[in-house]
Amino acid sequence: MVLMDQDGGAAPAVAPRNPGEGGGAAARPAVDKEVDFANYFCTYGYLYHQKEMLSDRVRMDAYYNAVFDNAAEHFRGKVVLDVGTGSGILAIWCAQAGAKKVYAVEATKMSEHARELVKANQVEDIVEVIHGSMEDVELPEKVDVIISEWMGYFLLRESMFDSVICARDRWLKPDGMMYPSHARMWLAPIRSGLGEQKKNDFNSAMADWYSFVDETEAHYGVNMGVLTKTFHEEHEKYFLQTSLWNNVHPNQIVGSSVVIEEIDCLTATVDDIRTVTAEFSSSVETDRTHISGFAGWFDVHFRGNAQNPARHEVELTTAPSVDDCTHWGQQVFLLHPPIRACVGDTVHVSFTMSRSKQYHRLMDVEFTTTLHASSGKSLQPRTAKFYIE
Amino acid sequence: MVLMDQDGGAAPAVAPRNPGEGGGAAARPAVDKEVDFANYFCTYGYLYHQKEMLSDRVRMDAYYNAVFDNAAEHFRGKVVLDVGTGSGILAIWCAQAGAKKVYAVEATKMSEHARELVKANQVEDIVEVIHGSMEDVELPEKVDVIISEWMGYFLLRESMFDSVICARDRWLKPDGMMYPSHARMWLAPIRSGLGEQKKNDFNSAMADWYSFVDETEAHYGVNMGVLTKTFHEEHEKYFLQTSLWNNVHPNQIVGSSVVIEEIDCLTATVDDIRTVTAEFSSSVETDRTHISGFAGWFDVHFRGNAQNPARHEVELTTAPSVDDCTHWGQQVFLLHPPIRACVGDTVHVSFTMSRSKQYHRLMDVEFTTTLHASSGKSLQPRTAKFYIE
Repeated sequence: MVLMDQDGGAAPAVAPRNPGEGGGAAARPAVDKEVDFANYFCTYGYLYHQKEMLSDRVRMDAYYNAVFDNAAEHFRGKVVLDVGTGSGILAIWCAQAGAKKVYAVEATKMSEHARELVKANQVEDIVEVIHGSMEDVELPEKVDVIISEWMGYFLLRESMFDSVICARDRWLKPDGMMYPSHARMWLAPIRSGLGEQKKNDFNSAMADWYSFVDETEAHYGVNMGVLTKTFHEEHEKYFLQTSLWNNVHPNQIVGSSVVIEEIDCLTATVDDIRTVTAEFSSSVETDRTHISGFAGWFDVHFRGNAQNPARHEVELTTAPSVDDCTHWGQQVFLLHPPIRACVGDTVHVSFTMSRSKQYHRLMDVEFTTTLHASSGKSLQPRTAKFYIE
Repeated sequence: MVLMDQDGGAAPAVAPRNPGEGGGAAARPAVDKEVDFANYFCTYGYLYHQKEMLSDRVRMDAYYNAVFDNAAEHFRGKVVLDVGTGSGILAIWCAQAGAKKVYAVEATKMSEHARELVKANQVEDIVEVIHGSMEDVELPEKVDVIISEWMGYFLLRESMFDSVICARDRWLKPDGMMYPSHARMWLAPIRSGLGEQKKNDFNSAMADWYSFVDETEAHYGVNMGVLTKTFHEEHEKYFLQTSLWNNVHPNQIVGSSVVIEEIDCLTATVDDIRTVTAEFSSSVETDRTHISGFAGWFDVHFRGNAQNPARHEVELTTAPSVDDCTHWGQQVFLLHPPIRACVGDTVHVSFTMSRSKQYHRLMDVEFTTTLHASSGKSLQPRTAKFYIE
């Protein structure tokens, strides 16, 4: 019996009996260790999760270099605010880079560990860890620099940038700067075997459902057929309309990569990022290929500000890469069926991403895709909806 | 950055970037399809979950037989209440078995599907689906029978029986009956390779942590060592102190199985089940073995009541079995290290299970285990704490 109220329960840690762990008369394969582990710590937001982010070398190097390569100009003697400090590492770096004072705000109980870490690294005179949400916190002064690692999957999932904007509008000095200072969202057409796999998974799930309906009627005298439509919708959403986390290989990209959104962290408002729309064309660069869908990723830059630009500008990119994968990977949006394409064709895309009505930290995405062949012919536009969950 | 407030968020469907899916510079194996799938639908409590329970043949047969084998005496012309009807199948069976009226209460949006199913199976004149939690629902009359499939892992996880008790105290006629009428909790000592595996996993996680601490200090100048204790505690809890779902093979049971709790569903109070304590001995029945831990399971019986006993008494057991596994499996509590034992030895156990202070639907468990060898010697008692998550 589903027990937990699904409209947001008092006990997020309690799942109903996990259907993936048992079911039917047959024993299921044991739960995948890695995934089970991740889910557990994901739910609880424990140190495990911090460690994973702290082990992302691309992420760490970018922030480390941004802070220390610009220590003299941007941090020495400055007042800094770290929004969502987590374990506190960015705040500690800012202190080590010469900041006069660092306010490190963290809403979860990770703040306790940040406090321990600050003390153990002898910067407790500089770094003040504040437990609370950025929207509620009161600081005794305005700050010169706001640093934050706020980026979610495809940049905006989790909507954490809202808190950074709030911090900026409340606490940044007029000539203050943001770390990072700029962010961009990218899309590129890709080929991928995942689409066919997901389609097969969906078909299997439906075949399984039809057997289930037959068996329930035969054995137990109840006709479940009326729920077929709902089951279909649920599973279609899951298998075919939910974007996937993936580490795309660069050679899966079959057309030009396009920047669909640029954010100046110093000036962007919540309204600016609530909906992202883009019209763009990508030139197909691989011959006789399929466009299986699109990969989305982001980069951020640390440029200081106009009055005080970075001496050494650092980029953190989560683009497809062989050697420099990140824990963000890319979000993949798969088209069903894929579109055949050749070198010289152009794929035109109307893209919209808006916040899910139900959960504002998740995103609803729509692609309308039109292939213009080099011959001059165009395919009918196709629209596909996706959910970033 | 951990974004979501872990003290119970507004958006249970939003996980922070999943550390199990990426991390480090290396790509991780793709998320296990089955588990990912289960987690998704678990969170949302969708039809998928209902289907899994409806596909549990042992569960279905027990309820089906209990209702239809006793239709004439217990259901024909009666008023029935189904607590947590889910898809509505028990309510439909009751109607098919001749009930005059069935109130089918469901707190989740699954109630909509129950309503569709009731209509499609032409019992809408009998079955009234009520969306709401049992504690709040008002019925126009008292009922003859309360039927419910309320059992969680190791019977009491999820604490759903509380709602059944509430329903009974408010709505059951004085001579009414409960379906099921009785429930029992069982424990048995088992051998299992899982203990060693979990211990190895724990050791690897700690080794990995120590490398991480070294590398973070070397590359990024921050000493994370102060968090070692917390990391150790988190991972010890996860790997060594959390009970596991498992389908135990009957030949893994190395001593006598013991009933540790009997519940009369007609009379039990919430206070009766809030804490379960038991002192018991189990005789070791396998020679030169290890007691790796204990398996816990439950059974329930459908006996009607004293005035109107079942013509055909049905048992639903979730005991270890080769052919009749259920989606409940067994909960396994692993001892570290295992205890060597021989035929003729006796293991004495003091057992306590109480509700987690943080989440009352989860359980804290404690075993104090003493081996009395047939030689007359006894080992030192050992106490182990577990969490049923």
